[in-house]
Amino acid sequence: MTVSVAVAGASGYAGAEILRLLLSHPSYHSGELTIGALTAHASAGQRMAEVAPHLVPLADRRIEETTATVLAGHDVVFLALPHGHSAQIAAQLADDVVIIDCGADFRLRDSQAWEQFYDTDYAGSWPYGIPEMPGHREQLRTTRRVAVPGCFPTGATLALWPAVNASLITADIQIVSITGVSGAGKKASVPMLGAETMGSLKAYNTAGKHRHTPEMVQNLQEFTDQPVVVSFTPVLAPLARGILTTAQAPLAAGVTPDQVRQTYAQAYADEPFVHLLPAGEQPQTQHVVGSNMCHLQVEVNTQTNRLLVTSAIDNLCKGTAGAAVQCMNLALGMPETAGLPLVGVAP
Amino acid sequence: MTVSVAVAGASGYAGAEILRLLLSHPSYHSGELTIGALTAHASAGQRMAEVAPHLVPLADRRIEETTATVLAGHDVVFLALPHGHSAQIAAQLADDVVIIDCGADFRLRDSQAWEQFYDTDYAGSWPYGIPEMPGHREQLRTTRRVAVPGCFPTGATLALWPAVNASLITADIQIVSITGVSGAGKKASVPMLGAETMGSLKAYNTAGKHRHTPEMVQNLQEFTDQPVVVSFTPVLAPLARGILTTAQAPLAAGVTPDQVRQTYAQAYADEPFVHLLPAGEQPQTQHVVGSNMCHLQVEVNTQTNRLLVTSAIDNLCKGTAGAAVQCMNLALGMPETAGLPLVGVAP
Amino acid sequence: MTVSVAVAGASGYAGAEILRLLLSHPSYHSGELTIGALTAHASAGQRMAEVAPHLVPLADRRIEETTATVLAGHDVVFLALPHGHSAQIAAQLADDVVIIDCGADFRLRDSQAWEQFYDTDYAGSWPYGIPEMPGHREQLRTTRRVAVPGCFPTGATLALWPAVNASLITADIQIVSITGVSGAGKKASVPMLGAETMGSLKAYNTAGKHRHTPEMVQNLQEFTDQPVVVSFTPVLAPLARGILTTAQAPLAAGVTPDQVRQTYAQAYADEPFVHLLPAGEQPQTQHVVGSNMCHLQVEVNTQTNRLLVTSAIDNLCKGTAGAAVQCMNLALGMPETAGLPLVGVAP
Amino acid sequence: MTVSVAVAGASGYAGAEILRLLLSHPSYHSGELTIGALTAHASAGQRMAEVAPHLVPLADRRIEETTATVLAGHDVVFLALPHGHSAQIAAQLADDVVIIDCGADFRLRDSQAWEQFYDTDYAGSWPYGIPEMPGHREQLRTTRRVAVPGCFPTGATLALWPAVNASLITADIQIVSITGVSGAGKKASVPMLGAETMGSLKAYNTAGKHRHTPEMVQNLQEFTDQPVVVSFTPVLAPLARGILTTAQAPLAAGVTPDQVRQTYAQAYADEPFVHLLPAGEQPQTQHVVGSNMCHLQVEVNTQTNRLLVTSAIDNLCKGTAGAAVQCMNLALGMPETAGLPLVGVAP
Repeated sequence: MTVSVAVAGASGYAGAEILRLLLSHPSYHSGELTIGALTAHASAGQRMAEVAPHLVPLADRRIEETTATVLAGHDVVFLALPHGHSAQIAAQLADDVVIIDCGADFRLRDSQAWEQFYDTDYAGSWPYGIPEMPGHREQLRTTRRVAVPGCFPTGATLALWPAVNASLITADIQIVSITGVSGAGKKASVPMLGAETMGSLKAYNTAGKHRHTPEMVQNLQEFTDQPVVVSFTPVLAPLARGILTTAQAPLAAGVTPDQVRQTYAQAYADEPFVHLLPAGEQPQTQHVVGSNMCHLQVEVNTQTNRLLVTSAIDNLCKGTAGAAVQCMNLALGMPETAGLPLVGVAP
Repeated sequence: MTVSVAVAGASGYAGAEILRLLLSHPSYHSGELTIGALTAHASAGQRMAEVAPHLVPLADRRIEETTATVLAGHDVVFLALPHGHSAQIAAQLADDVVIIDCGADFRLRDSQAWEQFYDTDYAGSWPYGIPEMPGHREQLRTTRRVAVPGCFPTGATLALWPAVNASLITADIQIVSITGVSGAGKKASVPMLGAETMGSLKAYNTAGKHRHTPEMVQNLQEFTDQPVVVSFTPVLAPLARGILTTAQAPLAAGVTPDQVRQTYAQAYADEPFVHLLPAGEQPQTQHVVGSNMCHLQVEVNTQTNRLLVTSAIDNLCKGTAGAAVQCMNLALGMPETAGLPLVGVAP
Repeated sequence: MTVSVAVAGASGYAGAEILRLLLSHPSYHSGELTIGALTAHASAGQRMAEVAPHLVPLADRRIEETTATVLAGHDVVFLALPHGHSAQIAAQLADDVVIIDCGADFRLRDSQAWEQFYDTDYAGSWPYGIPEMPGHREQLRTTRRVAVPGCFPTGATLALWPAVNASLITADIQIVSITGVSGAGKKASVPMLGAETMGSLKAYNTAGKHRHTPEMVQNLQEFTDQPVVVSFTPVLAPLARGILTTAQAPLAAGVTPDQVRQTYAQAYADEPFVHLLPAGEQPQTQHVVGSNMCHLQVEVNTQTNRLLVTSAIDNLCKGTAGAAVQCMNLALGMPETAGLPLVGVAP
Repeated sequence: MTVSVAVAGASGYAGAEILRLLLSHPSYHSGELTIGALTAHASAGQRMAEVAPHLVPLADRRIEETTATVLAGHDVVFLALPHGHSAQIAAQLADDVVIIDCGADFRLRDSQAWEQFYDTDYAGSWPYGIPEMPGHREQLRTTRRVAVPGCFPTGATLALWPAVNASLITADIQIVSITGVSGAGKKASVPMLGAETMGSLKAYNTAGKHRHTPEMVQNLQEFTDQPVVVSFTPVLAPLARGILTTAQAPLAAGVTPDQVRQTYAQAYADEPFVHLLPAGEQPQTQHVVGSNMCHLQVEVNTQTNRLLVTSAIDNLCKGTAGAAVQCMNLALGMPETAGLPLVGVAP
């Protein structure tokens, strides 16, 4: 059997990263997976060589306009589009097509939360693509629709669900996530110029304005009945890829550092893509760049009785495209780790 | 009258930055301030050209060994030494010498806090060099001894004292500060290599382990009777200079966003080196690099009822050497802003 | 007497850098120099705080539309505009206004060279603003019109004119200049995004295509009768500011390394902004960032009998705005170094 | 049959990169290739998690002392040691062991060239590991000993051998290569600190002093009888990985741009790791980072009648570890591209 895969938004960072991963996927090399239509809007008509020169094996492939007609007929369709575009396309594709949406459109189950943060109509929700959250992997094995998580919610959720789940903390959570600039996507703007971002740090969408906030709340709320409160502060830093998340909350009464460590060790004992570092070591984004890994550390600040969790991911890989391919693997019954690097490109 | 100035630790980043500022000081250009002995330990005997090629006007000056004998006879002595070395030298200098210590030795008023975080004997405390803290400027005008603040406490204190002072918050404070790599000083080490730090983010001295924590507590405790609790997380980012601090705490009951903004506007209305940005703008470290400025923003997260303050400073300038020169200006009765850039080198 | 200064293009990198320098100019502090109209096109109507937040002392100044009417009445007008706009404005300003054009419009004396490289009408030429080139300083003291050099020609000319002038080399010259990204200006584009430029190197406008090539030839041709040939390769590197130029050519017969060194030492013995490094040291862009300095090294490759000169400048300062202010100082009879940093912001 | 592989110098950048590649090698996944002894000197006794946290699958492996005894018994031994250490170890290993030396020890066939540039005894030469050079691939298929090329010679040789071979140029060659900081290796030093290298550019080992110069001459001399002259200028730039090489030489009489392009197109038509970009595009190091690719462009500067070739490689991958694994694949009769990424991690 051959699986044909289309990528909509192939000229953007997420789309190109999906293609980078597919090109080293064992099923691609064995011929069981083929790369079909590559689509985009502004760059339709161009060759891939013009928009993604690193994807040499696809250099001569022509980019088509993103339409349901072009995407139809594939077994898997990755959507890496600006939010608000996925619903219409999905509606026109057959039910048995595996559609993996890297946009925000189908992530939120609460239409009010959607409407508070987004400016397009609420489109509903799809199974959510963090297989490491208890209960999700099973669902992702059978679904034909996947909402790939946002990059910040991925780093934050992997950092925190074990603590919420085991009631280690009061769910009054502060998250500061520092991100590389590729998270802003591949569109021209003055604030994202190299000259504006190199040698500089800047917080943005602070004080509750970032759209990934309700997604973090939704994820963590799965694990507790107490209301989850998240104060989220994203910071832009001068690197291309990577997110370092620092997450903290008051430790629940009587919880010990050992208990904390054991909870995390057990939560991730069998997870191929989450690595709890030895005590005393801190995650470093360099160690996960280009890989689908999340490196984690968890500590108790005994002076202030707070839990501190730090996590490092590659925003374009585990934070987007890697998660998307991981979910494809699950949906297709392939080995979950197929084509997904376990080792970052360090230094 | 001529003031002669010596710099101990002239080959390090803080010492060289003091010299960069002095070389553009109007009193240096008018001849009222002269640069005398430049000392160091490992690089004693070398010329300045070998250790700080940017300081061209001092290129041929020879570095002497750091001893009280060499430093004696100057009107002002800047100490930019590893902690534990200042007390002995200071004891051998005349009482009327203005000694400005950029190290940690005389910052803490609580000997127990010192002993908890430092490995050398407690040396006492000197007037603390943040003139923008109420009460401090007056003291700094008459003292002959100054403890220059740590870089993180500077960014955090300027971000928070107005809120603590006006009881805008409960003093259960979380601070995440992201710093450039020059903060680690100019000593060879594998973790601080360019290859290890470029394209990477990493938290360090987390969960209460960073030595600047008690200094932050001490500073903020001046403004309230309730116990100040600080959870501090420093993060290393790939830039040479700059600290972006994000500080947050629960808003006190009944405090409004307007009240918050007015408190900060009033606190810094007359401060030449602290700039409260217009609402909606976030500070960016690039805008303060090379300058003695602190750019600030303050907001209320109305979803979580928390105050968020962000501040940007240059760790080597306002965070160390600029503060040192500012304190020298005060101690000598010179204009406080003399020789201190108000504009960062952006982009 | 008070000199009033206007800056056209105040929202761009060159314009803002001129303002940064003027704000620390001693004549500004003494009140002899005032900053008048600030103009731009796309950002007309905005406040300076919105386009250049680092220029705090000008935060509330409103940007006006760039027209001759607005600029008229000032004693000095800096033009920092895209090429093709200066001639028309200059024609409408009074003859005794000092006009300092940071664009390319009046740099080339050869209309054919202009037409080969530029797409607007040839506008003639003005005295050329490298005071360190023999003969130019005198001319710049009396002119009311200055063509500020391009950033690459500045680094290359300072590196090479002494060798050409002293016939140390055959004028078959190869220049590779590596530049920071601010050289591309402050306009939105995908190739200049932080994500595209961080962690990456790329040559551009190679093999004779860069517009600064004829300017380099023109400058060096002043010093020799043999035809000057320049092969110029610019490379984009991940830093905001700085140009490192490597320039080489065959050594003329019989020239010795000592002779080379002496030629350069003499050429720059009295130049405040050009620093020939001690033998064995290489210039580093970090050492000149934010300053008006050019650091130089000159060597002979005795294996291949070639001269190698390396120079480091800040493209926005000595490469543009610093040179502009230096020329203003000369034209106004102020000290040439007034307001121009001699020390870079390192590290 | 199972192949066991040892890596000496496993804690350095080259050794860790070899391991990163082996961990994704299909033969490793199929169990046909096993990773045996990992050795080092200073870090002997530590676990891999301490020195290379990104190599999670090897986290618990203990590093042994680098001795022939420990390395004996493996089918393949990679040596990633400082120069001067390989000969003694190689002498103690069996003749049928595939030894792949990433150091300089066996690269030069001319003992005089060795003695001029290196400070240890000349050790002889081994087959040279650039399979893309005509004649070399065949030799590499049968040898048990491989000298992996230096990173700069790789970028320069791939850029130039087709031109030399086809007599397109006079072999008076100027090479300027700009490199990331990982090329200096993982040893503590002040000049390679992040603070010294970020935001900065600097040439080093200029004017014939760099050890890779004779290796470039040797490689290109294989293709011509005229004496090859190389003037080589390396420049350090603020990125972790990547080398951009600009190479130029006078075009031979009568050679046309078309002829140049065809020569290169033919030279690399069947090479999986060398990609000649479409006309008008320039290679960018970001596009090859993490991969074994060399991206190339070739042009004629018709104004100066010179050939310009630019090439981009990842210094640690195609420049060292990737070439090493490529040579292992050849020596073992595995597919040459096995385990070697064809797509860089961009952006």
